[in-house]
Amino acid sequence: MRIARIAHPEGVAFVAVEGGGDLADPDVMVAEIGDQHPFGPHTFTGRRWPLADVRLLAPMLPPKIVCVGKNYADHAAEMGGEAPADPVIFMKPSTAVVGPGAAIKLPADSARVDFEGELAVVWGPRPMRDVPASRARDYILGYTIANDVTARDQQQADGQWTRAKGHDTFCPLGPWIETELDPADLAVRTELDGEVRQDGRTSALIHDVPKLIEWISRVMTLLPGDVILTGTPAGVGPMRAGQQVSVTVEGIGTLTNSVANR
Amino acid sequence: MRIARIAHPEGVAFVAVEGGGDLADPDVMVAEIGDQHPFGPHTFTGRRWPLADVRLLAPMLPPKIVCVGKNYADHAAEMGGEAPADPVIFMKPSTAVVGPGAAIKLPADSARVDFEGELAVVWGPRPMRDVPASRARDYILGYTIANDVTARDQQQADGQWTRAKGHDTFCPLGPWIETELDPADLAVRTELDGEVRQDGRTSALIHDVPKLIEWISRVMTLLPGDVILTGTPAGVGPMRAGQQVSVTVEGIGTLTNSVANR
Repeated sequence: MRIARIAHPEGVAFVAVEGGGDLADPDVMVAEIGDQHPFGPHTFTGRRWPLADVRLLAPMLPPKIVCVGKNYADHAAEMGGEAPADPVIFMKPSTAVVGPGAAIKLPADSARVDFEGELAVVWGPRPMRDVPASRARDYILGYTIANDVTARDQQQADGQWTRAKGHDTFCPLGPWIETELDPADLAVRTELDGEVRQDGRTSALIHDVPKLIEWISRVMTLLPGDVILTGTPAGVGPMRAGQQVSVTVEGIGTLTNSVANR
Repeated sequence: MRIARIAHPEGVAFVAVEGGGDLADPDVMVAEIGDQHPFGPHTFTGRRWPLADVRLLAPMLPPKIVCVGKNYADHAAEMGGEAPADPVIFMKPSTAVVGPGAAIKLPADSARVDFEGELAVVWGPRPMRDVPASRARDYILGYTIANDVTARDQQQADGQWTRAKGHDTFCPLGPWIETELDPADLAVRTELDGEVRQDGRTSALIHDVPKLIEWISRVMTLLPGDVILTGTPAGVGPMRAGQQVSVTVEGIGTLTNSVANR
């Protein structure tokens, strides 16, 4: 099931995307979920709209966003280092979240803002901590796509990554949450103005999704709707105003955003 | 005005603390605020309780917690470095927040967990970004006390500070929000089992409160209830299970927490 969050003529709703979810197909419909949350069990109001007539929003406004650094060996190498033995986690603020189609706004005080395409995990309805890797899949709501936008110069200047990765608009999420998916071996591809720049597979994750859940939940309680960014493969690079960036994760879809100056 | 959040026999409420707010004075009363939020303008329900009969909770469940590293030169020196020219920011997850009296839980996988007493700023009702330092005070709801609890060994191992500072219970906040306060020159004192361990003044902040607001809000929109930790003076040190840690900020009060193993 693909769960999206949309703006429709009368408000905002969680919906199920029917059919293939091809964003260009005018026949795809979305059906309103009868709760104010996406966690299920799902009831439907009967209201439906053509996907083309509604605006997709970020599928979740997460209580927290936990990210993992250098989780693909090829990306760690391109950053001039080795991948650490244990996951290194950091956070992005919820104020950085934007949805599909929204503009990534380049701040004036950075000379280089990079895309980082990633698979993202959305935590399900049960607040949990100390989740063993073997049980992690039981508590995940589903998967979406994230762009871990990063002001590379600020990342290097600060040491801590919060400013570099925390600007408003620096966490595009979407286009929806796919609840039926095995995250073990999915293609992750980023295109800038249609040119492939990142082309990895989640099978190359140093710490896979279950291991990340175990590691993070040993530290902090995971809350319903928390989002976990799993790391980016090699090929990160800068974006300029006027460009378009698309991240595609196999089995989910494509998250496309424009790039503009603030 | 001192705004607290309490558990009373029938539920949870924001209250105004009447009189001096001496936690040991059985005559101090708290008066229930008639809204589900602390931002005012305040109406009162007429319900009042003796402070001694209610339990103080963290005065805010913040959408985000933004912290500043090495913002006192004496602390930067004791950490073996110099203070950076610009503020270095990081985040703690909201799941780390606990209230006065709650136990700080030491995780089994850290050999050294330190206290860091700090002045904390609570953002007011207006979501804002790009706030000039000269206007910052206009948008602040008030001030409270924080303990930026830190697993020092994990901080050093990871480089990024999120794990070290993000464990559940690692962000005690309280005992209340003081709305009438000039933060420019306040004593900040931490005692461990009654022994003074940190004794600084906010006048020694390298980046003062208005400057921090300007810096952070240039990056991210500040939301109602966001909490900003302003940094810790020299004297940080480890805590053991069974100890008590108290952080006192002049003009606010004292935040006391016990320490226990998880």
